[in-house]
Amino acid sequence: MGAETIRCKAAVAWEAGEPLSIEEVEVMPPQKGEVRIRLMATGVCHTDAFTLSGEDPEGVFPAILGHEGAGVVESVGEGVTGLVVGDHVIPLYTPECGECKFCLSGKTNLCQKIRATQGKGLMPDGSTRFSINGKPIYHYMGTSTFSEYTVLPEISLAKINLEAPLEEVCLLGCGVTTGMGAVINTAKVEAGSTVAIFGLGGIGLSAIIGAKMAGAERIIGIDINENKFELAKKLGATECINPKNYEQPIQEVIVDLTDGGVDYSFECIGNVDVMRSALECCHKGWGESVIIGVAGAGQEISTRPFQLVTGRVWRGTAFGGVKGRSELPDYVERYLAGEFKLDDFITHTMPLEKINEAFDLMHKGKSIRSVIHYEKV
Amino acid sequence: MGAETIRCKAAVAWEAGEPLSIEEVEVMPPQKGEVRIRLMATGVCHTDAFTLSGEDPEGVFPAILGHEGAGVVESVGEGVTGLVVGDHVIPLYTPECGECKFCLSGKTNLCQKIRATQGKGLMPDGSTRFSINGKPIYHYMGTSTFSEYTVLPEISLAKINLEAPLEEVCLLGCGVTTGMGAVINTAKVEAGSTVAIFGLGGIGLSAIIGAKMAGAERIIGIDINENKFELAKKLGATECINPKNYEQPIQEVIVDLTDGGVDYSFECIGNVDVMRSALECCHKGWGESVIIGVAGAGQEISTRPFQLVTGRVWRGTAFGGVKGRSELPDYVERYLAGEFKLDDFITHTMPLEKINEAFDLMHKGKSIRSVIHYEKV
Repeated sequence: MGAETIRCKAAVAWEAGEPLSIEEVEVMPPQKGEVRIRLMATGVCHTDAFTLSGEDPEGVFPAILGHEGAGVVESVGEGVTGLVVGDHVIPLYTPECGECKFCLSGKTNLCQKIRATQGKGLMPDGSTRFSINGKPIYHYMGTSTFSEYTVLPEISLAKINLEAPLEEVCLLGCGVTTGMGAVINTAKVEAGSTVAIFGLGGIGLSAIIGAKMAGAERIIGIDINENKFELAKKLGATECINPKNYEQPIQEVIVDLTDGGVDYSFECIGNVDVMRSALECCHKGWGESVIIGVAGAGQEISTRPFQLVTGRVWRGTAFGGVKGRSELPDYVERYLAGEFKLDDFITHTMPLEKINEAFDLMHKGKSIRSVIHYEKV
Repeated sequence: MGAETIRCKAAVAWEAGEPLSIEEVEVMPPQKGEVRIRLMATGVCHTDAFTLSGEDPEGVFPAILGHEGAGVVESVGEGVTGLVVGDHVIPLYTPECGECKFCLSGKTNLCQKIRATQGKGLMPDGSTRFSINGKPIYHYMGTSTFSEYTVLPEISLAKINLEAPLEEVCLLGCGVTTGMGAVINTAKVEAGSTVAIFGLGGIGLSAIIGAKMAGAERIIGIDINENKFELAKKLGATECINPKNYEQPIQEVIVDLTDGGVDYSFECIGNVDVMRSALECCHKGWGESVIIGVAGAGQEISTRPFQLVTGRVWRGTAFGGVKGRSELPDYVERYLAGEFKLDDFITHTMPLEKINEAFDLMHKGKSIRSVIHYEKV
């Protein structure tokens, strides 16, 4: 309460297709139900690059991108009851209000409370908290973590253990939770299962970790880039295969390798042909395939309905099906308990000023995750 | 034991596309692990017509069709331990051996123990039990219920309550169980759910009954033939709609009618476009669509993967996911307890000699089910 506008550094996306520009922005105090946080770290994710490219139909500019952050509560607005100054938090692009039809269903993490405004780059009251010389700058995914300070609704913040290193657990704000959650929350993989993971980028590697945590007996990694196999095996893949080494369709190869197919498969790329392969490599009678990757606009998946009539299940997941406020803190606890590590994912760290290098590394396939470290106050 | 070859009446399909022919056939005694039964009744199902048409890639001729029967054990072969002469049984085109990988999984009813021979019209030992003047006649779906007597493996027979009227519960051998089971076993519809059922033939009507038994609050029937609405409502549909009365795609109409979509939908036709509508009318976050209908050879289903990533689930079912020996007898008990009725399905009854009329009525859309009553001994 009584907080004032802060001036701070942020990376601004002025328009699609252009590099980000480091600017001094004004960040208004949190309004009713809102919280202002100081970011300590943020990952740079493919989704940021997708929006920056101009292909995201929901992309609005100028905006402050970024959605995989971790920080500390700096001030709270009127009516905020669950957070106090100094709390450590992970911003949630999928909030959890606990009141909407979706939250009350208990069946999904897709809280829709602020979906309409968030999709337009606005806070729930329809305005922005960022500006430069009075000109509004839009929010992004309700998080805007490419700024030293950002403002979010209280329902978009997961309060986490103060012991957690923010420079690492920021990755739980998107990619790592998406992959692990797809295995643990969405598919509910059981111990002893056979699992196929298509695409060994950050999401796929996280899915491997999730499969190992779930006790899967056989974890098959699939990628056309064999350079990724070493890390995949280090993290838990029991074997890795390259579809280019086979003449048959990869689903047939996997069915043969596994005496009928896998119990669970995960598509971690966003390629609709791979989504089909992932479904069709599942075991007749019970195999389930989970789509994690995001396909290009207008693209469609196809298969013969016989695949489903004979018992395969096709589903998808967003943020790994993880409910941000009620379940994400448990992932942080499991990290702190040593159940999984995050350092293998962080291939580069850099200050905000070098953020365009993070995008370059990503485009060139040279990074798993670059993490921006903000200056300590 | 000690049983001899029986001569009896059967309707033989000599070749694709021709009417059935009533013949005297020889039915060998049951061999090891086999049971010979006297049929008391059999339904005539679309799948019989599909095979008779010649479009079924697994169709072999000459054969004795029929797979929706009920009868009495006449004799048992060596090693049969679960059935004795006089037991009442329903033949199972999906057996339940209890020993194969599929049965042991606990996750599916698709027992594969005798799949290879059954698909070729043969008993598990690779031979047939039917012949005419020494010329072998093939089995069909492992059941061949268009005969006064038939032989099946013990694992292909469900033993049911002696009180059940065989002329009615024969329908539990296929269509009615398929529709009810899809709702109760496969989708596990919860009380209070909103459900959409596409196609109001025998399977769709059975799905309506299943939805009512499950306590669904809102049951929407969809068909382009409004003559079917009256019976659908009698059986439990709370409303019926005709897609031809709307300019919008039917999935959009249903999403509007239901404040976001249905909890569960069922495709009971076999039309791949309707399968897409059924998926897309499901509620974001949790809606599940179950394919029951069998599409034409080579046809494919499609949708945008976003439909799944935002929480919808696409699955299918065969024989309603019901395990024949361990679960079908419970359906008979529920019928006997008055939980559902079967007489609304039986629009015609006739002796075996008139079986071609049953096919005619079906092709003309004038019947739900015709049931053949065999002569009492």
